Amino acid sequence: MITVLCGGVGAARFLRALRAEGSVPTTDVVGVVNTADDTVLHGLSISPDLDTITYTLAGAIDPERGWGLVDETWTAMGALARYETVRPVGSSAAPTWFNLGDRDLATHFYRTARLGEGARLTEVTGEITRAWGVGEQLIPMTDDRVATVVELADGTSVSFQEYFVRLRHSVPVRAVRFAGADRAVVQPRAATAMRDADVVVIAPSNPIVSIGPLRALAGTDDLLASRRDSVVAVSPIVGGAALKGPADRMLLELGHDASVVGVARLYCDVASTLVIDPLDAHLADAVEAVGMRCVVQPSVMSTPEVAAALARRVLDVAR
Amino acid sequence: MITVLCGGVGAARFLRALRAEGSVPTTDVVGVVNTADDTVLHGLSISPDLDTITYTLAGAIDPERGWGLVDETWTAMGALARYETVRPVGSSAAPTWFNLGDRDLATHFYRTARLGEGARLTEVTGEITRAWGVGEQLIPMTDDRVATVVELADGTSVSFQEYFVRLRHSVPVRAVRFAGADRAVVQPRAATAMRDADVVVIAPSNPIVSIGPLRALAGTDDLLASRRDSVVAVSPIVGGAALKGPADRMLLELGHDASVVGVARLYCDVASTLVIDPLDAHLADAVEAVGMRCVVQPSVMSTPEVAAALARRVLDVAR
Repeated sequence: MITVLCGGVGAARFLRALRAEGSVPTTDVVGVVNTADDTVLHGLSISPDLDTITYTLAGAIDPERGWGLVDETWTAMGALARYETVRPVGSSAAPTWFNLGDRDLATHFYRTARLGEGARLTEVTGEITRAWGVGEQLIPMTDDRVATVVELADGTSVSFQEYFVRLRHSVPVRAVRFAGADRAVVQPRAATAMRDADVVVIAPSNPIVSIGPLRALAGTDDLLASRRDSVVAVSPIVGGAALKGPADRMLLELGHDASVVGVARLYCDVASTLVIDPLDAHLADAVEAVGMRCVVQPSVMSTPEVAAALARRVLDVAR
Repeated sequence: MITVLCGGVGAARFLRALRAEGSVPTTDVVGVVNTADDTVLHGLSISPDLDTITYTLAGAIDPERGWGLVDETWTAMGALARYETVRPVGSSAAPTWFNLGDRDLATHFYRTARLGEGARLTEVTGEITRAWGVGEQLIPMTDDRVATVVELADGTSVSFQEYFVRLRHSVPVRAVRFAGADRAVVQPRAATAMRDADVVVIAPSNPIVSIGPLRALAGTDDLLASRRDSVVAVSPIVGGAALKGPADRMLLELGHDASVVGVARLYCDVASTLVIDPLDAHLADAVEAVGMRCVVQPSVMSTPEVAAALARRVLDVAR
């Protein structure tokens, strides 16, 4: 069994790479997925990372945007603009800054209805992945509510989606915290998957806002540390830049190095090995100096072949 | 000021007739609207009668269906079908029997978000009608939750929308009740409008499930009875049949006459006058025998001219 700790796009691509690699049956792959980006808009429960992974593995993701469904339409969102003009001051109804495609809406409708019936997010996620024919087991990191709060340099705090989507992650960040993480319980199946897997992979996701929330849950770091030898992380930073999203700037703003060395410092307690791209090969010694084994392997998953080779290498070094 | 007691389609058409009549400024028209058909689906707060009236007055209603928006698309609903196959037994998530158009969804998104912020339905309704440029004041009968429960002949109970939409109102009904009506308070602005208007019109809506819920609220019947002389009802039954919906069968099944006489018996305590179509002119004496003045006037609003003439006659007889 392979367990992958997941954010959104980077993790989705790594899970797809595992399929391309081909040696592990999809049903033996578990994704433990960040839910601290989850939000409620229009009364709908939205789980961006879970959906990005599901749609990617279903072959239905929009390849350009990296999120949402391919061949999507935006009729409902277009119609929402009418209500922006009548929304009272102080209201955040009719948020047109968060685009929800018409077909994508069905997923949020289903999730919202099922949670309203008292189902746990884990259950609902299993139903949604089954509806999309996804064989991998996707497990939310917790069934409790954890919410990433981003404290901006100007002192105001915003939700993750406000930072990421509304503000297009273009404003400086002073701190990040995970509201509710102190009370939330790691999903028991996620804990089992992290404990019993042959290999745990930390996907090339944002170490702070994608992997950070899972690590903020009581017990996770201890669990990973206890089996550190077979935990491999893939660096989301290549050549000093994030492959996607604001990980590079966020690392800098929060006092870390926006480099594979900075990533190694964040992961060295819980993972034995860091996979870095040849572009960063000159930093391999610096990574090892931090206390991680460093493996150089093309990690920009630009073709299925590169992706499959990355997955193969990750499995090899962990076994 | 003219106050119209409203269900959905029939009331929407009567309000449009008042515009065509032209003697009353739209801002002097108040619609007190049934909300006992309101429902929550996919976590979204849906108010069918309010929306039917708003869309009709905005000139945006689908003229064929009589509900929903013209030139609508159904992409989200189409995508929902995928989830029907994975819904567990006992779950009512992914209800594809209640069609929500993509553009229409924006209205439910806005309403749900505003109610979630603590706004009252009356406030939100004012915002929605403003967004659509509707000058008439639409006021929900109450800001509290009242839900029509339909008891079927087989003893099971279903929500109004399940009866009306899912079962296509094709099953016999044994009783109708309005859950929550005993605790709900008439919207204060609605009460004022019913008390102070020059004329109160009971629109040609279903007497039981459209006008019934408003009348089930404490004080409404007394208020109408105290000014009965200037309350005029327009019969929704023409030639023994409902113009739209199940009013005729429902009247019969609940022990009333499916005729203008049956309607008169239901309204005689709260309205002085019943307007009936020439098709029912032979029943005028029977209506008067029940204790209502009977006015014969073409009441099938098939053209703007017929509709305007109906509105004019209603205003004339009430003044």
